[in-house]
Amino acid sequence: MTKKLGWIGLGNMGQPMVTRLLNAGFDVTVYNRTRSKAEPFAAMGAKIADSPRELAAGVDTVITMVSDGETLEEVLFGEGGVLSGITAGQTVIDMSTVGPEPVQKAATEFAARGAKFLEAPVSGSVGPAKDGTLVILVGGDEAAYEAHKPVFDVLGKASFHFGENGQGANAKLAINLMLGVFLQGLSEALVLGSKAGLDRETLLKAIAQTAVAAPIVLGKTPSILADEFPAAFALKHMEKDFGLALHTAKKTEASLPVTSSAHQTYVAAKANGLGDHDLMAVLTQLERMAGLK
Amino acid sequence: MTKKLGWIGLGNMGQPMVTRLLNAGFDVTVYNRTRSKAEPFAAMGAKIADSPRELAAGVDTVITMVSDGETLEEVLFGEGGVLSGITAGQTVIDMSTVGPEPVQKAATEFAARGAKFLEAPVSGSVGPAKDGTLVILVGGDEAAYEAHKPVFDVLGKASFHFGENGQGANAKLAINLMLGVFLQGLSEALVLGSKAGLDRETLLKAIAQTAVAAPIVLGKTPSILADEFPAAFALKHMEKDFGLALHTAKKTEASLPVTSSAHQTYVAAKANGLGDHDLMAVLTQLERMAGLK
Amino acid sequence: MTKKLGWIGLGNMGQPMVTRLLNAGFDVTVYNRTRSKAEPFAAMGAKIADSPRELAAGVDTVITMVSDGETLEEVLFGEGGVLSGITAGQTVIDMSTVGPEPVQKAATEFAARGAKFLEAPVSGSVGPAKDGTLVILVGGDEAAYEAHKPVFDVLGKASFHFGENGQGANAKLAINLMLGVFLQGLSEALVLGSKAGLDRETLLKAIAQTAVAAPIVLGKTPSILADEFPAAFALKHMEKDFGLALHTAKKTEASLPVTSSAHQTYVAAKANGLGDHDLMAVLTQLERMAGLK
Amino acid sequence: MTKKLGWIGLGNMGQPMVTRLLNAGFDVTVYNRTRSKAEPFAAMGAKIADSPRELAAGVDTVITMVSDGETLEEVLFGEGGVLSGITAGQTVIDMSTVGPEPVQKAATEFAARGAKFLEAPVSGSVGPAKDGTLVILVGGDEAAYEAHKPVFDVLGKASFHFGENGQGANAKLAINLMLGVFLQGLSEALVLGSKAGLDRETLLKAIAQTAVAAPIVLGKTPSILADEFPAAFALKHMEKDFGLALHTAKKTEASLPVTSSAHQTYVAAKANGLGDHDLMAVLTQLERMAGLK
Repeated sequence: MTKKLGWIGLGNMGQPMVTRLLNAGFDVTVYNRTRSKAEPFAAMGAKIADSPRELAAGVDTVITMVSDGETLEEVLFGEGGVLSGITAGQTVIDMSTVGPEPVQKAATEFAARGAKFLEAPVSGSVGPAKDGTLVILVGGDEAAYEAHKPVFDVLGKASFHFGENGQGANAKLAINLMLGVFLQGLSEALVLGSKAGLDRETLLKAIAQTAVAAPIVLGKTPSILADEFPAAFALKHMEKDFGLALHTAKKTEASLPVTSSAHQTYVAAKANGLGDHDLMAVLTQLERMAGLK
Repeated sequence: MTKKLGWIGLGNMGQPMVTRLLNAGFDVTVYNRTRSKAEPFAAMGAKIADSPRELAAGVDTVITMVSDGETLEEVLFGEGGVLSGITAGQTVIDMSTVGPEPVQKAATEFAARGAKFLEAPVSGSVGPAKDGTLVILVGGDEAAYEAHKPVFDVLGKASFHFGENGQGANAKLAINLMLGVFLQGLSEALVLGSKAGLDRETLLKAIAQTAVAAPIVLGKTPSILADEFPAAFALKHMEKDFGLALHTAKKTEASLPVTSSAHQTYVAAKANGLGDHDLMAVLTQLERMAGLK
Repeated sequence: MTKKLGWIGLGNMGQPMVTRLLNAGFDVTVYNRTRSKAEPFAAMGAKIADSPRELAAGVDTVITMVSDGETLEEVLFGEGGVLSGITAGQTVIDMSTVGPEPVQKAATEFAARGAKFLEAPVSGSVGPAKDGTLVILVGGDEAAYEAHKPVFDVLGKASFHFGENGQGANAKLAINLMLGVFLQGLSEALVLGSKAGLDRETLLKAIAQTAVAAPIVLGKTPSILADEFPAAFALKHMEKDFGLALHTAKKTEASLPVTSSAHQTYVAAKANGLGDHDLMAVLTQLERMAGLK
Repeated sequence: MTKKLGWIGLGNMGQPMVTRLLNAGFDVTVYNRTRSKAEPFAAMGAKIADSPRELAAGVDTVITMVSDGETLEEVLFGEGGVLSGITAGQTVIDMSTVGPEPVQKAATEFAARGAKFLEAPVSGSVGPAKDGTLVILVGGDEAAYEAHKPVFDVLGKASFHFGENGQGANAKLAINLMLGVFLQGLSEALVLGSKAGLDRETLLKAIAQTAVAAPIVLGKTPSILADEFPAAFALKHMEKDFGLALHTAKKTEASLPVTSSAHQTYVAAKANGLGDHDLMAVLTQLERMAGLK
């Protein structure tokens, strides 16, 4: 039986994800704070709800994909929020990256109404969202995870259940800190190369042949050579995720020297106007710090 | 015309590299400080020289593959060293990782004798050395580079000419700093995961699906799960290469915050007895710093 | 007219501070969660309240001095908390170090009841608390600050008004990050000295003559030489304050590379059992990382 | 018996130091690469030598005070250098900051000629050089140290003998890393304060009352408030000393996370044109990284 899905959040990630679900034949109702972003989906067969509450009332499962914890708090627990429309037996799945604390709180709130809550943050940005090749990192009730595998299979190439609520969020933070660290590592290699007089294109070709040629390194190479960084994943969001990872690290007493060092460079990049660029613009910040720009 | 090659240095890297050259039909004379390491190669068709000088006198091209700058200095310029046996028209190729300064010095010394000098450090450790899939990063005379492509093609899957002497060395340092940073980034993700209660195997499976799944990350996964780190590339050598990269960075005024932060963790690992383990043992040091071990 | 003061929190700091106020002739009522800690003050003339609410009801000004934000939340806003006993015209002063957010929240809550709220965190640990040489960093209503100068003058050698609520807290965090960074800088100098073979006592004598001889450096010298670190200011509290400073830094987009690096070392120290020692035990953590211990 | 002294190096430090020695009645011969800087000292009673060799030939003790290791190498061992003019029984004292390796090398070279060599780097910049309140950190032969106490007593308020050659140099590096770290810690506190809206002057007044009020903090306060950083101790020299300290740390396997983090900020400052400003200009670099400038 195909579930009736409600989808909240039609930003860069939400749009291609909903498109895939509609194309796969799911019955989807959408809600977006700015309604104009929702309207194109009506032509594709989606219903449009006027509030999270209304949306929640008419579906089996509510999925949220928003930019940060404050927005999630608002759509779930604000006036006219999901909680006010939920009934026992429903499931809410948050696919945003907000860290373990908000999802644990949400799980508790929905459990009190007899509803289930999963967090299912994703690794991958706009490209994988379009291609359905996201990696989905799930925490919460295992049966609810299994029940929603058909949804996850449309959105991602793999999904993993990490345990209770909060553990999917933690897995996401662990993976994302690698992302931020890797791109700063790449950037520092390129800055060293430039200061030493190496041709950047040749250096990137050599890197592409080595054991550090992560998919993200290969993927960012064209934008590096063009020196243009339109946001696939905005630097300010990477900065936010570093903050969440370091918050969990502090609480669990994990000492993460390189993660915290990289975080401070992303903070500097954001303070210098690069927050809305792609996270690869950390290279630009490091080039400034090296006097190259 | 196949050149007569002389090979100095039969450590973990030199052994499989010479084996490949012999198998490919090259005429190879070998020298190793500890002669017993050279003897097995006689059975494979190699000649054995008693000194770098003797070796240099009988070949077209001398290749050195040693562990550090001091050893290179000794075999090239010490008593009975290569320089004392070199004649005009020969070529010397150093494939060690010693940084730009020793190779620039060597190039000057050999040029004074009418000989050519290339540095050709490699990216890749024992496995790629056996498989002939090293990446070879060359600095020095371009004609000499072209003339030795047949040798490089046996040893590596790709070679790149970066310009004058020192630039191959610089490229190597840039790539190796990425290696050290990436494995520390991976380690910090794993430490955060463990402190937060994530199952390490599931986390590594998820990482393997994402954009940070560099070949080195996938390659180290079995040793991480076994928690055993026999050296493919010894941590102390990574520590040395970080030092060389940061020395060049200092000279060229490149500010590399994450590289220097990672370096200090590798120094701590070395100071705590992990220098002869694989560089992946930086994970062990970080686990200790997190109170996990 | 001497005000009637209520004091909540009789830990290492609260005890000597209340003692000074009683000796100076103030009328003081005290409350402590563990009542046995309050009883000795009765003999010195203090009244004892059974709850924060009861305490608040009988005084002009309530002062809180607790260990962290959670405890402050509890004594101010929990059941039987200060808020439930407050009436218009009273003043509440928090002298703990909890960061700007809790004090801004508290100020709003008390303002709604017609009460004033100041934060007045202190720089200085047990010794200055006894001697009345704390430095008091105040945020909130300026008239309330002026009205309580007689209290501050008993407790500290200087007080500063930094503006609205939150700014005293911010000043405290700025100063405390210097403390943590300075002691790590000292520790790194001592570790380098020990690894290089310098006599530690001679090095400390030399340091004492130089421009880096901060009072805190001189003050910690005996404990360093004894290699014993009973807590004057517990390392775990310094770790907490680093976290608060970096939280404010993140929010205001201040990139603080050295502060964040030091923080991670304190996290490592805490994860390795040094949290209840004096913050100077960061030296022990660094000695371990250098293989000295 | 007053010794005949030869002095090489009349920069910012050398000038006031020679002036003190002349005023104290020492017989001083001076040499400076740019002779015009030497001439004013003739009017004060100094002789002027035309080369280090000539200078060495006419005195009991040669003192060098130059800007870096390359210059020291040149004046000691270059053509017409001190070594070429030295005879058995003389003493050479280097008061520059060049790290342990050059002074150990120099000691060996001079010992081969029967001459003694002390390194005696100083803590303190131009002000203390004028006032004779430098702190002098000595390595080398103890008898030679004792014999030159009268000279050190004119130049400094205290001198310490740390053992064999190299140990005075190491002590200097340990103390100087504290200097660089402390001023970055101060700068980060000020940057956090500015981003959070604190009045800088009030914050500095408060800092001046606390346990982190090191003499260097108080001494730099006027230049911070004026936001002008004429060099008392040039930032590029601090950057150099960080490099020397980290080189020794690497060799001795001391992990210094905060020192290396601070070093990278000073490198960035130098790469951005601040190398000839006072080291306090690290604040300017951090202000830029925070988007304040």
